[in-house]
Amino acid sequence: MAATTIPDTPAHTVDAFHRGRFWLVQPSRGGHRAGMDAMMLAAAVPSGFSGRLADFGAGAGAAALAVLSRCPAARAVLVERSTEMAGFAAATLSHPGNAHLGDRASVLTADVTLAGWARADAGLADNSFDFVIMNPPFNAAEDRSTPDALRRQAHVGEDGLFERWIRSAAAVTKPRGGLAVIARPEQLVAILDAVEGRFGDAEMLCVHPRPDAAAIRIVVRAALGARGKLSIRPPLILHGPSGNAPAERAEMINNGLASLFGD
Amino acid sequence: MAATTIPDTPAHTVDAFHRGRFWLVQPSRGGHRAGMDAMMLAAAVPSGFSGRLADFGAGAGAAALAVLSRCPAARAVLVERSTEMAGFAAATLSHPGNAHLGDRASVLTADVTLAGWARADAGLADNSFDFVIMNPPFNAAEDRSTPDALRRQAHVGEDGLFERWIRSAAAVTKPRGGLAVIARPEQLVAILDAVEGRFGDAEMLCVHPRPDAAAIRIVVRAALGARGKLSIRPPLILHGPSGNAPAERAEMINNGLASLFGD
Repeated sequence: MAATTIPDTPAHTVDAFHRGRFWLVQPSRGGHRAGMDAMMLAAAVPSGFSGRLADFGAGAGAAALAVLSRCPAARAVLVERSTEMAGFAAATLSHPGNAHLGDRASVLTADVTLAGWARADAGLADNSFDFVIMNPPFNAAEDRSTPDALRRQAHVGEDGLFERWIRSAAAVTKPRGGLAVIARPEQLVAILDAVEGRFGDAEMLCVHPRPDAAAIRIVVRAALGARGKLSIRPPLILHGPSGNAPAERAEMINNGLASLFGD
Repeated sequence: MAATTIPDTPAHTVDAFHRGRFWLVQPSRGGHRAGMDAMMLAAAVPSGFSGRLADFGAGAGAAALAVLSRCPAARAVLVERSTEMAGFAAATLSHPGNAHLGDRASVLTADVTLAGWARADAGLADNSFDFVIMNPPFNAAEDRSTPDALRRQAHVGEDGLFERWIRSAAAVTKPRGGLAVIARPEQLVAILDAVEGRFGDAEMLCVHPRPDAAAIRIVVRAALGARGKLSIRPPLILHGPSGNAPAERAEMINNGLASLFGD
């Protein structure tokens, strides 16, 4: 005679970001749980940004909401292919703790790898955004279990992932609009190859867990149609030489109090 | 009735490197004067390296001699296209201050961009070196004065430069042999594109003048035929946050007392 509860949303948690300035409704297991990557990606947008931002592969919306939280004149479209994750994004936007941000954001369930008319039909019109941020599912690509699949992924799939995502970003961005990508160091070539000829003034930044450790993430930012060459900015070091306490700059970025490129 | 002196070598200086452990005979003006770039490039070779090293575009020989000075079991071929600079390289090897190194080095006047039989005929046999280091003339490429030449250089010449140099390096290197390149950040894509499919286990390191300044050089190291992915090592910072004194690690590298990648 035990009561049966049928929840109307999958099991989830509600987590505070930016020291409680916004909240994320996200799956308690499975799916992609957001964290530092999303905060670093959002921090690539200049603090003075105003205009229309697309978050490609938005998940539950962490990166987009972090931009809205730091940039009061920004509006955002959370683009997510998975209907389940888009549901979490919608739940995030309707959460009472995000009431001050919700009217500047919307969710679009769409596959960002669509091209041409199919992409426009899905709601991603050409030349319609001032900035695109993306945290492509680069971890998923690593999880294929068979050697054959891994090889295929390494030589075709992974390069193709960034090529397709960045091609779409170039299409939907206005001239001189921005792009920011967060990924792993081994994906640098695929990203820079896809950026080249579309975006310029590229800036790259390496994220190291400690001053003496290899980078675990790269962030690349660029402007559509710009002509300047790649520059490599000072790295972001997450922790000091010893101990686990986050470095001050990393803490500022994680809490929406500083931008990644100093603007 | 003033006496006229006809020097048998062009005007030159003799400069100490590695705190006097070797000397460089180099043109006092014009040509390429060696310095920190050559020392950083040489430092990419592991301290325990033994075998046959080629210095592509050796100039007066600074990088190759820095390797010989730090790695007692290394031998080096200084490959230089310019007969004038090859003359300086020969003068460097015969300088009395380099007597302890000279018998492990030779000069080869050859164009490293040759391919196939022409390259082998010029003295660069396939599969004959354990390590190739290169400091391509990337500055010269920037010095073209007309916009047309600059554009041509940017879109064809510069990419082609690294492609040709690295293609030759792959040809003359033994399996699992090493490659190290020093260049500017904006040349990263051309380098990684040329490395890909030939060398693996690539490691990249950014050189920043100060902790808060953009990188001025990149060093890329890789192994022929290896399969590992790109990693990004901790950066080298030349100076502290304030003042002009070199950072301790930079000083060690400049003086042949430390390697760049910690091996």
